[in-house]
Amino acid sequence: MEIAKQKKINFLFEASVGGGIPIIRPLNQSLTADEIEEITGILNGTTNYILSKMKTQGSEFATVLKEAQELGYAERNPEADVEGFDACRKIAILTSLAYGMHVDFEQIYTEGITKITAEDIKYANALDASIKLLATSKNVDGKVYAMVAPKMINDKHPLFSVNGVFNGILVKGNLLGDVMFYGSGAGKLPTASAVVSDVVDATKHMGTNIMTLWSSKHLNPADMSTYESKFFVRVPAREEESAKELFKIEKVVSIPDIDGEYAFITEKMAEEAFEEAMKKLSIINRIRVEF
Amino acid sequence: MEIAKQKKINFLFEASVGGGIPIIRPLNQSLTADEIEEITGILNGTTNYILSKMKTQGSEFATVLKEAQELGYAERNPEADVEGFDACRKIAILTSLAYGMHVDFEQIYTEGITKITAEDIKYANALDASIKLLATSKNVDGKVYAMVAPKMINDKHPLFSVNGVFNGILVKGNLLGDVMFYGSGAGKLPTASAVVSDVVDATKHMGTNIMTLWSSKHLNPADMSTYESKFFVRVPAREEESAKELFKIEKVVSIPDIDGEYAFITEKMAEEAFEEAMKKLSIINRIRVEF
Repeated sequence: MEIAKQKKINFLFEASVGGGIPIIRPLNQSLTADEIEEITGILNGTTNYILSKMKTQGSEFATVLKEAQELGYAERNPEADVEGFDACRKIAILTSLAYGMHVDFEQIYTEGITKITAEDIKYANALDASIKLLATSKNVDGKVYAMVAPKMINDKHPLFSVNGVFNGILVKGNLLGDVMFYGSGAGKLPTASAVVSDVVDATKHMGTNIMTLWSSKHLNPADMSTYESKFFVRVPAREEESAKELFKIEKVVSIPDIDGEYAFITEKMAEEAFEEAMKKLSIINRIRVEF
Repeated sequence: MEIAKQKKINFLFEASVGGGIPIIRPLNQSLTADEIEEITGILNGTTNYILSKMKTQGSEFATVLKEAQELGYAERNPEADVEGFDACRKIAILTSLAYGMHVDFEQIYTEGITKITAEDIKYANALDASIKLLATSKNVDGKVYAMVAPKMINDKHPLFSVNGVFNGILVKGNLLGDVMFYGSGAGKLPTASAVVSDVVDATKHMGTNIMTLWSSKHLNPADMSTYESKFFVRVPAREEESAKELFKIEKVVSIPDIDGEYAFITEKMAEEAFEEAMKKLSIINRIRVEF
């Protein structure tokens, strides 16, 4: 981008995030008056397809992954998708654009969906919630937290109804409030549509560099240890008392056909404090909660 | 816009549709590779607020309008909103941008929400549907139909969960498929955000006119008489037999606490044929159906 600026040409990449959804250009040109407080996206269609299918079919991750591979929705080597690496690279691009500084994707906390089980989905259903792989960057008092992780959201969240291979991107601006962009995140035609829009834009700007805010200055994401969220936690039933001592519990979740465990949602707490407390329990699973 | 082109300056109007939602610039610059097949929007926050409240409270239009006026969501003289005129002017702008020709708002078929009753909403609920004021332009075999009217949609429709004062705009492109934009359609800060983005854009393009496709050539919307949709219809119970003779009925809708009437959804039919048939019945109400 610096070379392009020097040479008065353009380096454009609308198709790099959200396939055909216009998001790079709006962030660059339309949301210029706002301070971006948060960007949260469902940025990977493969994992969203898998999680949506696990919900509708009640199947396990491995089963749905195999189906998705047979249908061509997941690659033979699905690691980049299911481990969250693809979503991580995309939120690195959006965060860099939003704050005008380069964010290294290696510095973004990234968790995939391989540990999500059919039982986790059952709990989510009991809470009228869905588990989605969310890629987020959030400006909290000047510190930018960036992460990719599966999270439980309910129907109050604008991304709740983004299902299947679709992508959705929520942008919170200090003036704008919430804006959401939704569409096909992949596929040859939507992606081609984004590439052609770049070609058209480049042609309209022959001899001038379209101004962007992305400088080569580095933005180091804040240390996740101070990041606060609620957690959905499952521990063996025998650890109910210890869990009650270790956590401020907002809600206990029990469902008829799962026995022998104690499941609950904590109050908001820092990642570090959560990790500390969890060391004292035999965790079955834990998923961050956004409601 | 022609004068601006001649003088190499810019005439920008991002805030004119959808408040802070970036939609004018994406239509102009990002969706350039696509042929736009349809634009459908919830473009007026006041009517969307009223319809959402009628649904959640079960109240009549007049009651909710009064509340909305007291809260400042509706103006003292609410005609421009509730009769659909505001949405009409906005879909005229989007249609002109999408097809690169000027559409006169007076030529767009426009119906408001003043005739929607609490009973209509009850029927919609029974169908797991919502009634929304949709502003649409649709390219059917080269003919562009444009209309504003209350329509029943269900949760398969991307605009179903756009509630309260929010706006949502669905764009269908021949390559892109569905793209949806969602956000605050009004309010001083979101609107200011859009205005400032125009100022920034104008500053970036000093001395050059940003290319747009909107020519002064006129696009005459197609005659609505050939436009096809399904209709939800309520007639007095005594006219059940006549209704069955006049219409191909896809579904009968009955709800426990409404007596003395026969309600149904027709198969898809042209507006003209529908109007003809309705002349022979004492209609209670009719609403177009999009599912």
